[in-house]
Amino acid sequence: MKQAASLDTIDHIAIPADDIASAVEWYRDLFRCEVLYQDPTWALLLFGNVKLALVVPEQHPPHVGFVSSEAEKFGPLVPHRDGTRSTYVEDAAGNAVEILAPYS
Amino acid sequence: MKQAASLDTIDHIAIPADDIASAVEWYRDLFRCEVLYQDPTWALLLFGNVKLALVVPEQHPPHVGFVSSEAEKFGPLVPHRDGTRSTYVEDAAGNAVEILAPYS
Repeated sequence: MKQAASLDTIDHIAIPADDIASAVEWYRDLFRCEVLYQDPTWALLLFGNVKLALVVPEQHPPHVGFVSSEAEKFGPLVPHRDGTRSTYVEDAAGNAVEILAPYS
Repeated sequence: MKQAASLDTIDHIAIPADDIASAVEWYRDLFRCEVLYQDPTWALLLFGNVKLALVVPEQHPPHVGFVSSEAEKFGPLVPHRDGTRSTYVEDAAGNAVEILAPYS
């Protein structure tokens, strides 16, 4: 088996929630996680190995996010309000995948 | 900020794919990941920090999976073909969350 260090990592997973506050409360009640950001339209929870984003469905599709040093090869990078730059692609099954430039 | 070691970890994320083989190929082409398991109904990809499951929509809902030493408190644990035992709950927003007993 390859060493984990030689594998790419998943930066975050984003899942839908109409009521961000109650979803954040649900995860905080059941799991040890840290709220990195929260407003009425989205929240970002830090777990021990990956981040979980809760997003209102109107603003973002559910997606899996990767950081890639070659992010711009996937498409034009769009700046986001949290300072990241990324582009969205679809996997072979039509799932949304966000490709983020490395955090600067 | 808390140390990551004190936070719970996400075991896996499962996302839908009608054609498992082509979805596996898509991820393998673009990312460094390892195929831990693959058949026509599901596949399990290992990334550096978390596993990504690809599942045919008829068999499993998209979900986020946690390992918990108190998994049985969430509901009756059902054995799966991969040797794990788990129960499914819904988060406050209705997303499926799998709670797995620790691997034995």
